[in-house]
Amino acid sequence: MELRDLQLNIEEHLGKNVKLEGWVKKIRAQKNFGFIEFNDGTYFQGIQLVFDDNLVNFEEISKLSIYSSISVEGKVVKSEGKGQNYEIKIENISVFNKADISNPLQNKRHGMDFLRTIAHLRPRTNTFNAVFRVRSLLAYAIHKFFMERNFVYVQTPIFTGTDAEGAGEMFQVTTLDLNNIPKTEENKIDYKEDFFGKPSFLTVTGQLHVEAFASAFHNTYTFGPTFRAEESYTTRHAAEFWMIEPEIAFANLETNMDIAESMIKYIIKYVMDNAPLEMEFFNTWIEKGIIDKLNNIVNNEFGRVTYTEAIEILKNSKEEFTIPVEWGMDLKTEHERYLAENVFKKPVFVTDYPKDIKAFYMKLNPDNKTVRAMDLLAPGIGEIVGGSQREDDYDKLVNVMQKKGLNIDDYSWYLDLRKFGSFPHSGYGLGFERMLMYITGIANIRDVLAFPRTAKSLEY
Amino acid sequence: MELRDLQLNIEEHLGKNVKLEGWVKKIRAQKNFGFIEFNDGTYFQGIQLVFDDNLVNFEEISKLSIYSSISVEGKVVKSEGKGQNYEIKIENISVFNKADISNPLQNKRHGMDFLRTIAHLRPRTNTFNAVFRVRSLLAYAIHKFFMERNFVYVQTPIFTGTDAEGAGEMFQVTTLDLNNIPKTEENKIDYKEDFFGKPSFLTVTGQLHVEAFASAFHNTYTFGPTFRAEESYTTRHAAEFWMIEPEIAFANLETNMDIAESMIKYIIKYVMDNAPLEMEFFNTWIEKGIIDKLNNIVNNEFGRVTYTEAIEILKNSKEEFTIPVEWGMDLKTEHERYLAENVFKKPVFVTDYPKDIKAFYMKLNPDNKTVRAMDLLAPGIGEIVGGSQREDDYDKLVNVMQKKGLNIDDYSWYLDLRKFGSFPHSGYGLGFERMLMYITGIANIRDVLAFPRTAKSLEY
Repeated sequence: MELRDLQLNIEEHLGKNVKLEGWVKKIRAQKNFGFIEFNDGTYFQGIQLVFDDNLVNFEEISKLSIYSSISVEGKVVKSEGKGQNYEIKIENISVFNKADISNPLQNKRHGMDFLRTIAHLRPRTNTFNAVFRVRSLLAYAIHKFFMERNFVYVQTPIFTGTDAEGAGEMFQVTTLDLNNIPKTEENKIDYKEDFFGKPSFLTVTGQLHVEAFASAFHNTYTFGPTFRAEESYTTRHAAEFWMIEPEIAFANLETNMDIAESMIKYIIKYVMDNAPLEMEFFNTWIEKGIIDKLNNIVNNEFGRVTYTEAIEILKNSKEEFTIPVEWGMDLKTEHERYLAENVFKKPVFVTDYPKDIKAFYMKLNPDNKTVRAMDLLAPGIGEIVGGSQREDDYDKLVNVMQKKGLNIDDYSWYLDLRKFGSFPHSGYGLGFERMLMYITGIANIRDVLAFPRTAKSLEY
Repeated sequence: MELRDLQLNIEEHLGKNVKLEGWVKKIRAQKNFGFIEFNDGTYFQGIQLVFDDNLVNFEEISKLSIYSSISVEGKVVKSEGKGQNYEIKIENISVFNKADISNPLQNKRHGMDFLRTIAHLRPRTNTFNAVFRVRSLLAYAIHKFFMERNFVYVQTPIFTGTDAEGAGEMFQVTTLDLNNIPKTEENKIDYKEDFFGKPSFLTVTGQLHVEAFASAFHNTYTFGPTFRAEESYTTRHAAEFWMIEPEIAFANLETNMDIAESMIKYIIKYVMDNAPLEMEFFNTWIEKGIIDKLNNIVNNEFGRVTYTEAIEILKNSKEEFTIPVEWGMDLKTEHERYLAENVFKKPVFVTDYPKDIKAFYMKLNPDNKTVRAMDLLAPGIGEIVGGSQREDDYDKLVNVMQKKGLNIDDYSWYLDLRKFGSFPHSGYGLGFERMLMYITGIANIRDVLAFPRTAKSLEY
């Protein structure tokens, strides 16, 4: 059986024999008895195995190394020792594999930096076991939230021929031989020989593509990997990360905020309900008070304020910011955190930003100066969601694109959505890893990605 | 409100006023009344709107073009017309956007080839609306199946430094300027200047990485995009597609088959239960009898036969195959389909293939000639799942890798999994689009991908 089923129904199994297969997490043996902390990976909390020299292979078992894999049979009994209520009195152990003593993972606290150098083994530690279980639950919560609301999940393409936001640095993808790039007569790269017959890149967003699906399904979202070729060495940038991008037809910015707020509360609550042991672990070992922090989010209505009001609030505050506040500027993390932590003391949506600091596809307000953008700022982190109502007026959209220097031909299909039944619509983007860091308290994005890919780092 | 909520609870709304926002799917107007087939994208079946010249904008509405977007208010009434039981008697219509008459999507049957040239508009047609709704439900069913069984979803990396199976052709990813590739003194490419500091590629499988997580969580799966740079122009190959790869600790090949069989039955049933209108549509318009075909799969135990037995069956059959059957050969589609369609008349697992035609990581049988591989062959398609028990013996694995010419250093982390608590484990891969084609009857992979990417084709 699996440990999870045993732990969740342990009273039922009391006095009965069980069979488990898993790994030795700790072991201490005396002359004629011993204890193994055992786990099979299905449940955060392991179980203690007790064995004695009635075992035919007592000598072998006593000397087992950490992470050796074993199959055990024994009776579930109440434990008289400290630290656990139940244990298994072993009648039979067989060994699949004795972990080689060169195992870099030992029974002690390892630093996060060291564990990053053994990313293939670190999921076996408590910290990473908790992180990646929560990652899995969080991903599912996102799907569940949207599917319960009849959204259609669209897997937007990874390969793209255009730079979607006119922003992020992109990875180029090619099947050309870099040692021998084919050239045309004019000595330009002959892309006819490349796989797609033209330059191709990895996507930085699925938004534009999912807008096409919103015109067919009303309620849609993407959830997939996204790429940035920025050579950042911070704790918050990875070259490959996952993003959630809902797009909702006939939704204005208020509806957009309502959905983002419901989603965030839903997914946090889902993780807290379904990973109570992991959340306790984070609360104790990673970020003290994180459970209170998350409960505060789940149980309060988010604030809502316009950018112009926010600028006034910041200007009138007595806080001295490193970068002074001025209408027209992009808010920096210090400003965002001040708003969320000191002014609102909870997550707050800031809306209607100056058009010049926001993307081309955002809906222009009647004031002609601001766009229907929204950023959700959360205490302890700053911006966590960015979104907007989209410009649905063909002429206005073309106008902005031209002003921002985008090639209209590259976007003709996107413009078609404004030509053939244009509709008010809104959406937002949530960085999956950033959300996961917020929920777990993990400070480095490298520690919430299974095998992180960052500048100059591509191992495993 | 949304159309789906109205359609599913229409009796409740009878005689009441409702407000909907969506698109004109068809329209016919007489001198002083007219009908609109309306849909807002939330439900496969639209609703008829009836309007007359009491509307102040009767003239404008009468002339609306297909796919114009509108907001409507009116009373739900029983319909006396043919083809529908209910309709909405309109009291108020406002128009968001009149679809330009250059709209390539018109109220007639368009060919699949043509629709592929307007991939951003085709989700609005019945066929693609059904396909992409089912795609979304199928993806969710896969997550639901595994999450209900306490699996951990692992998002394995897209970037890789190694060619995972020593097989598939790969895309290279780079931030080097292809016009000006930096060279070392020895005139080799200077990868120090590339983003990762070394050659990097797009993954062809997440299996090896998810095996590391199986050693921590027991039950794991990946579900993400996968890439092949094969220049195929068939109806079944795309450069970018999604794959599901479960990996289960302490599972032998029998357990592996049990899980694959349960999963396939579960996800098919989930789609049939949750998309009845769409499935009826496929049954009528795309593949007659597809519902029976799928019910046959859901309701029968799959067959199981060894490769060696299968070869005997094929040899003893009176069928004349294009390629003659011989022990040691890889089965071709004609053989696979014959086994599934003529011999077993249901899906059948073929197991224990000759080692020379299978991947390096598959567990060697005691006969030293075959490996614990499994392929699931389904009527009408051939291979739909491929998997195996994995080689968990360090020495045997190194031996095969060397024979197959793999660079052991590239796989040192993978080999560690056999050194530090090696464990029996099994897994399989399911091509998401192939499964989707099987469930919908759609014959071309380009028609089940939102924006398909194939050789020489990268539009949108």
